[in-house]
Amino acid sequence: MRPLGEASFDLPAGIVYLDGNSLGPLVSGVRARLDDVVTREWGDGLIRSWNDARWMELSARVARRIGPLVGADPADLHLGDSTSVSLFKTMVAAVRLRPGRRVIVVEPTTFPSDGYIAAGVADLMGLELRWCDPADPLAAVDEDVALLSLTHVDFRTGAMFDMEAITAGAHAHGALVQWDLCHSTGAMPVDVRGADADFAVGCTYKYLNGGPGSPAFLYVSPALQAQARQPITGWMGHRNPFAMARDYEPVDGVGSFASGTPPVLALSALEAALVAFDGVPMAELRRRSLELTDLFIELVETRLPDVFGVVTPREHLRRGSQVSLRHPQAYGVVQALIARGVIGDFRDPDIARFGFAPLYNTTADVRRAVEQLEAVMAGDEHGDPAYATRNLVT
Amino acid sequence: MRPLGEASFDLPAGIVYLDGNSLGPLVSGVRARLDDVVTREWGDGLIRSWNDARWMELSARVARRIGPLVGADPADLHLGDSTSVSLFKTMVAAVRLRPGRRVIVVEPTTFPSDGYIAAGVADLMGLELRWCDPADPLAAVDEDVALLSLTHVDFRTGAMFDMEAITAGAHAHGALVQWDLCHSTGAMPVDVRGADADFAVGCTYKYLNGGPGSPAFLYVSPALQAQARQPITGWMGHRNPFAMARDYEPVDGVGSFASGTPPVLALSALEAALVAFDGVPMAELRRRSLELTDLFIELVETRLPDVFGVVTPREHLRRGSQVSLRHPQAYGVVQALIARGVIGDFRDPDIARFGFAPLYNTTADVRRAVEQLEAVMAGDEHGDPAYATRNLVT
Repeated sequence: MRPLGEASFDLPAGIVYLDGNSLGPLVSGVRARLDDVVTREWGDGLIRSWNDARWMELSARVARRIGPLVGADPADLHLGDSTSVSLFKTMVAAVRLRPGRRVIVVEPTTFPSDGYIAAGVADLMGLELRWCDPADPLAAVDEDVALLSLTHVDFRTGAMFDMEAITAGAHAHGALVQWDLCHSTGAMPVDVRGADADFAVGCTYKYLNGGPGSPAFLYVSPALQAQARQPITGWMGHRNPFAMARDYEPVDGVGSFASGTPPVLALSALEAALVAFDGVPMAELRRRSLELTDLFIELVETRLPDVFGVVTPREHLRRGSQVSLRHPQAYGVVQALIARGVIGDFRDPDIARFGFAPLYNTTADVRRAVEQLEAVMAGDEHGDPAYATRNLVT
Repeated sequence: MRPLGEASFDLPAGIVYLDGNSLGPLVSGVRARLDDVVTREWGDGLIRSWNDARWMELSARVARRIGPLVGADPADLHLGDSTSVSLFKTMVAAVRLRPGRRVIVVEPTTFPSDGYIAAGVADLMGLELRWCDPADPLAAVDEDVALLSLTHVDFRTGAMFDMEAITAGAHAHGALVQWDLCHSTGAMPVDVRGADADFAVGCTYKYLNGGPGSPAFLYVSPALQAQARQPITGWMGHRNPFAMARDYEPVDGVGSFASGTPPVLALSALEAALVAFDGVPMAELRRRSLELTDLFIELVETRLPDVFGVVTPREHLRRGSQVSLRHPQAYGVVQALIARGVIGDFRDPDIARFGFAPLYNTTADVRRAVEQLEAVMAGDEHGDPAYATRNLVT
């Protein structure tokens, strides 16, 4: 099995990298592009590069590459802030569109920022935060609900929601729906228009390989853009920023979701990284992703029977692009695997998490990862007392 | 006159750069540092660099370099978002600390984002936005005012407010004060503690040379940190982000103003750029800045009498580090100067703006700029019909 697509990745020799769902690796070409932005555009061009290097169009340029990956018209995407700030902007805009409704529904096992931001918005705007049952989010949606905010693929379990069915169910109650696409974008086809999503936000440093802390994208349904008002009304969302008028007048369309000056270095690195998706059919990406996760699950269950609980759903329609294994010493398992050159990550309290990215992962990676996992367990390496104290991130 | 400090700047040959108040130039060392972050930390270290390269401490590391420039304990500074988002967070936190008061006061000729963001906050929280007289901001401050938000040095005129006196005057009415330090930080001593400022926000891509779109810093007075609550409650402001608990609990101190994952590439470039301030006494920086602006004003008035209106105050105590000249064809003047290798910028409708940064500008730059300005005016180059249509930024 060859990796999908034509791009090469600067992965260190001897490493099997199964943590692209946390931080995607360096795409060849990013380094040279960033150096060119620094030396030629910034160093030589200086302030003139806002015009000459078209820095002001960076969000739109990157959106043209992300649009096809999520089923959005690029004109409905904006990039510039962190995932948290983007979630905040779209949540406030959503609840403002349903002024008579007082409830935001969030799923309690979602990535914590989603819940924290929703709680912050509820607190700020005098709304109620309602936690739903992850097995049946729609049971919490009624005519009091302004917004249902869900994560497409769960960061911990890898379980996937049916975007289209859930969105339709919430719409039937008049609620708006926001989707967090952090753990699906770039690993499978996503179709925000087809699902009739109202708002969506996605991370670009996971399966999109944009680099550590690269800015998020946000999506606003074209049907809502004329009415939607985000709260951080900075000059970059103004109809005519360089007129520098006293009063704010938002530009038409999703551009009104901009606030400050675009992060030029980060957007430039991201733009260069997205070349890795050139010519990659999303259906084939999904087929490969399922092939990799199917094989990993099968090998873990046959080679290491009854050692791990497979947390990720077996059903393809409910699975993202990762496999999560439960083990009481999951932290030690992950650390011992890293020492053997297989990088996954740990999620509190007992999850070992392995992400599979068809742009650079192959079935050979899967086989090698499971071989090393067998060796770890056979040698009781995960029980090393060095792993009794947990380090910061993984 | 030699430039101040030991750093060198990668300025293109033959250019006099007087636009560091819009985008600071490339500091030597930034290019190599960023390449190391990309190839070694991201490319080779991958997810491990969150621990090994201490990415999680980047905001604190940069704060240690900015603290001395603005008179703040680094523990009271946070970096991570754009200036607009940072203004929003601190404004919301401020008005929440004065729950009985319904007014935000802003200055109508301030940088537009400050007014736009204040209007957005007022709208969101049901408050009144009150415009003050730039000549006497305190006249608008009474017992209804929650927050007075001012810019230390005006982006258009270069006029400077007396931070200490105005802050004391607003405090006498029980109002909080936020200072926008975008056009003073890095060009002169700033003393947020000495002025008893409550909140401050500053740009890092102007006189701090952090690169296009680099993240802002924000300051929260230590006296307010225990009560201050910003609204964008992302996981990076949580007491224990990697516990990934359902409920938000802010970390103590200014760290609670964090939201999303730190922008690693941008913060790394900024950290490397700030080395240019090593060993530079801020009082000497100010002395040089005034020497440069004094000389520029003197030469413009003697060589080009009655051609330009000097908008920037003559009085040192009221002057920032730029000189703004008024002329009906200011756009053409700036463009013709750029064609001659002297880069300033234009601000609508009739301002030609020249920023002086003592880290790389010298009296020789000032003399050359005025010589070229004389040549432009003598040859009527500013009247070139090509300048009848304005380009995007300068």
